[in-house]
Amino acid sequence: MPNDDLYAVIMAGGSGTRFWPASRVARPKQFLPIAGERAMIAATCDRLEGLVDLDRVLVVTSGELAGQVSECLPDLPRENVLVEPIGRNTAPCVALAALEIERRSPNSVHLVLPADHVIEPATRFRESLAAAVDEARRDSRLVTLGVRPTFPATGYGYIEVGEELARHGDLPAHRVERFVEKPDAERAEAFVASGNFLWNAGIFIWETQSVLASLREHAPGIVQPLADAGRATGLEDLYPTLPALPVDVAVMESATNRSVLPIDYGWNDVGAWTSLPDVTPADAAGNCAAGGGRLMTEGASGNIVYGEDGQLTALIGVDDLVVVRAGDAVLVCPKDRAQDVKRIVERLRDEGPEFL
Amino acid sequence: MPNDDLYAVIMAGGSGTRFWPASRVARPKQFLPIAGERAMIAATCDRLEGLVDLDRVLVVTSGELAGQVSECLPDLPRENVLVEPIGRNTAPCVALAALEIERRSPNSVHLVLPADHVIEPATRFRESLAAAVDEARRDSRLVTLGVRPTFPATGYGYIEVGEELARHGDLPAHRVERFVEKPDAERAEAFVASGNFLWNAGIFIWETQSVLASLREHAPGIVQPLADAGRATGLEDLYPTLPALPVDVAVMESATNRSVLPIDYGWNDVGAWTSLPDVTPADAAGNCAAGGGRLMTEGASGNIVYGEDGQLTALIGVDDLVVVRAGDAVLVCPKDRAQDVKRIVERLRDEGPEFL
Repeated sequence: MPNDDLYAVIMAGGSGTRFWPASRVARPKQFLPIAGERAMIAATCDRLEGLVDLDRVLVVTSGELAGQVSECLPDLPRENVLVEPIGRNTAPCVALAALEIERRSPNSVHLVLPADHVIEPATRFRESLAAAVDEARRDSRLVTLGVRPTFPATGYGYIEVGEELARHGDLPAHRVERFVEKPDAERAEAFVASGNFLWNAGIFIWETQSVLASLREHAPGIVQPLADAGRATGLEDLYPTLPALPVDVAVMESATNRSVLPIDYGWNDVGAWTSLPDVTPADAAGNCAAGGGRLMTEGASGNIVYGEDGQLTALIGVDDLVVVRAGDAVLVCPKDRAQDVKRIVERLRDEGPEFL
Repeated sequence: MPNDDLYAVIMAGGSGTRFWPASRVARPKQFLPIAGERAMIAATCDRLEGLVDLDRVLVVTSGELAGQVSECLPDLPRENVLVEPIGRNTAPCVALAALEIERRSPNSVHLVLPADHVIEPATRFRESLAAAVDEARRDSRLVTLGVRPTFPATGYGYIEVGEELARHGDLPAHRVERFVEKPDAERAEAFVASGNFLWNAGIFIWETQSVLASLREHAPGIVQPLADAGRATGLEDLYPTLPALPVDVAVMESATNRSVLPIDYGWNDVGAWTSLPDVTPADAAGNCAAGGGRLMTEGASGNIVYGEDGQLTALIGVDDLVVVRAGDAVLVCPKDRAQDVKRIVERLRDEGPEFL
């Protein structure tokens, strides 16, 4: 049964170029069915079912994207969409949401979740979150989930795990020794080999009062002006003056009452087209299709395909390509060139902004 | 100055699968800008400019496609679109058009042209046609243009060239020795080596009375019922009973008063996606774009791309692919697999007729 004092904050202000042309300035990844049939933000809410009701879910996004939040989450109360005038990284977002939740329920606990990750199975994720809530209540700790690394990634920050502090059911909560920025390959290897490091997944669980206290202590320049401004009043002028810091840096790196619960099931931040095979079932020839379109192949294997509902992609005799058809654009590239999508996006700023 | 007694018949009833997904059942190749910026049928009319005015151009097509003829040729008089209830190859089409032209101008000469070929330069083509008109007037001959072969094609019929009969300006007209069906590779090699064979391009020039006389002699089962039925009256019941014969077989193979004028400039029947580089300028890396869409490449070469107006295709690091984005479908295949488009089309009959 959902806990009346448990809220969730979904950070949905992000924009990116790595999923162009499916993601556009006006429709970033979190609003697309990149993995599964539902928009990623809707899947993020689905994953909380039974733990947090939709009327206690707040979504933080930009003014431009607010309409799409409502489109993807038609049952979300309008007043649960918090609009940031401009994105200033996650610390102002977290502070804004914490202040709003404090107004609604001062003694609540809340979760902070990115809108565009895949975490499976949802039942285990909810168990982890429930344990994290218990840990957050225990001595008002700032809790994060850390993902057991499956390879020496250099694209994620790491969390060094300290002693076990408590168990919640079967799930241990550990002290956080330190947060580490994205390492080089050698350090990443060492981290993974040590067994003492987890990936920082940007998922946080804390009492509303506890995170606000930490923000006041470690990031007063963010939380105080926001508290003074009040919700949606004067934010236009204020936001550009706030430090653009990640909450990890603004709060977690300095706090001392930090706990981490390891996740050793499926987590994926779906960072590029090449992540699709990790989060999408493939056909017998290893072709992965997402986006809701149809795929028909003749002697084609290992391809990653995105097409929209009602669209058909036909592949004949091609292997290991990324083929995306979305709106008014098509992208074709080998999987190992998928990162060069950003070059096309850069050129489009001058040569074809209507396609961005 | 256009000749008042010169008409043109454009055969535009064809359908095909080789340009799927650009060409569909409801929109075959002749209505698409496969080569150049204009629909192929419009380019075919453009090519006649100064020789045949649009009000003396008749287009023969099916009922389903008549609307698209008007769309592509908005200035074509409505009464110049002749509708065949069903396609019965080219002999009934030629007879139907000849009978209609006879009603309008009994002593006319007319050209018969496929709607979906590329012939360049247009000035030279008009010179050839004008010479062919002179040849047709000379002793009421049935004239065809034959294309000087550039390789031993097995996909075309051939015309064996006989003695020179006359010259019209610089252009010689030869007796036709015989029409030869598509040969095997060995015969094709011999034909080309001999220097005496031309490709049959399906282009005919004749007096209206002359072709009608030949039809009455060699294909009475086609022309007589059509003459009795009258234009667009009773065609529904009649057409399915007509022999489905090419005009080459029904008339030209049997006639004796046959002349051929060689063409040794650019002719292309644009038979498949892989024909595009022959009729479309390529960029410095050998990428050919057609259809009116935009192409942006990063390290991509030798590709054939079709996209519609207002669409963007972005290719990164891929070579020698065919990439087509048209309507609700995308096709990606290596150039050397382009003929397998038909396999997709066959499967779609059962699995996705809405995409045909």
